[in-house]
Amino acid sequence: MSAVDELLRANAEYVATFPGPRPKEPRLRLAVVSCMDSRIDMFAALGLGIGDAHILRNGGGLITEDVLRSLAISQRALGTTEVAILHHTDCGMTGFDDTAFRAELAQTGQTPGWDVPGFTDPADQVRRSVQRVRECPWLPARDAVHGFVFDVAAGRLAAVA
Amino acid sequence: MSAVDELLRANAEYVATFPGPRPKEPRLRLAVVSCMDSRIDMFAALGLGIGDAHILRNGGGLITEDVLRSLAISQRALGTTEVAILHHTDCGMTGFDDTAFRAELAQTGQTPGWDVPGFTDPADQVRRSVQRVRECPWLPARDAVHGFVFDVAAGRLAAVA
Repeated sequence: MSAVDELLRANAEYVATFPGPRPKEPRLRLAVVSCMDSRIDMFAALGLGIGDAHILRNGGGLITEDVLRSLAISQRALGTTEVAILHHTDCGMTGFDDTAFRAELAQTGQTPGWDVPGFTDPADQVRRSVQRVRECPWLPARDAVHGFVFDVAAGRLAAVA
Repeated sequence: MSAVDELLRANAEYVATFPGPRPKEPRLRLAVVSCMDSRIDMFAALGLGIGDAHILRNGGGLITEDVLRSLAISQRALGTTEVAILHHTDCGMTGFDDTAFRAELAQTGQTPGWDVPGFTDPADQVRRSVQRVRECPWLPARDAVHGFVFDVAAGRLAAVA
């Protein structure tokens, strides 16, 4: 059975518990940025309800231009004013050699346009990511930018910036 | 109280329910791409457990180069072989004028490098997004690329591609 058949079956049960329509503007005026990692169930881990916060996730939880584009829409069109950035333990981007990876992909005939290096320490990376958001002039609200490390073995969030 | 104080309080309760360590390679060998929209609780809506799937989210759930970068890492470094793409009803990117938005941001002195237009119909956009992933040579597994529309008023997932 394909993984997606499981998803559709589970969703049919979920619909019965769904609380109903909510505004598209996040209730907590919050956007959360994190990694795509499979061990981060963002709503449960942060106690979020339907309609509470924007959730942005990519490989590494890194502040790429696509994340800044999304945050600009989040703040300018949908009223968010706070940003929470989570990096996490045991990340696939720890020690990731992006230069070698881009060279590998270029062999397919389509050359990557990005330059998104990996990192070594998640807490250190959180501080860099917070700084990157604070320096982006596209975002009208940059006073409340918070950084966390999420422990994927324990489910625990720790504030670091 | 800042929104993040609420998150930390909720997380302290979550830790007690956390199932423990899981491998970083997703159990369902699946990556899910969707919008940052605040009304999509991905784990609950799809019945996912800790460690099951990569979750990628940005403004619009659009297949940007950052999403393709993340999918390339997901497949080449972490073993996923299926992709599920969700667009949704009542999306902030429906009818979004990206050209005007980029011009607005350029006035801050930092010119956007992207070109990520909005869309009109989510089902139509799903088919375009599926096609974009199927055409990306960076991804070794492109046979199982599935498309869905998520109804944010009802919590219901519908397969469309």
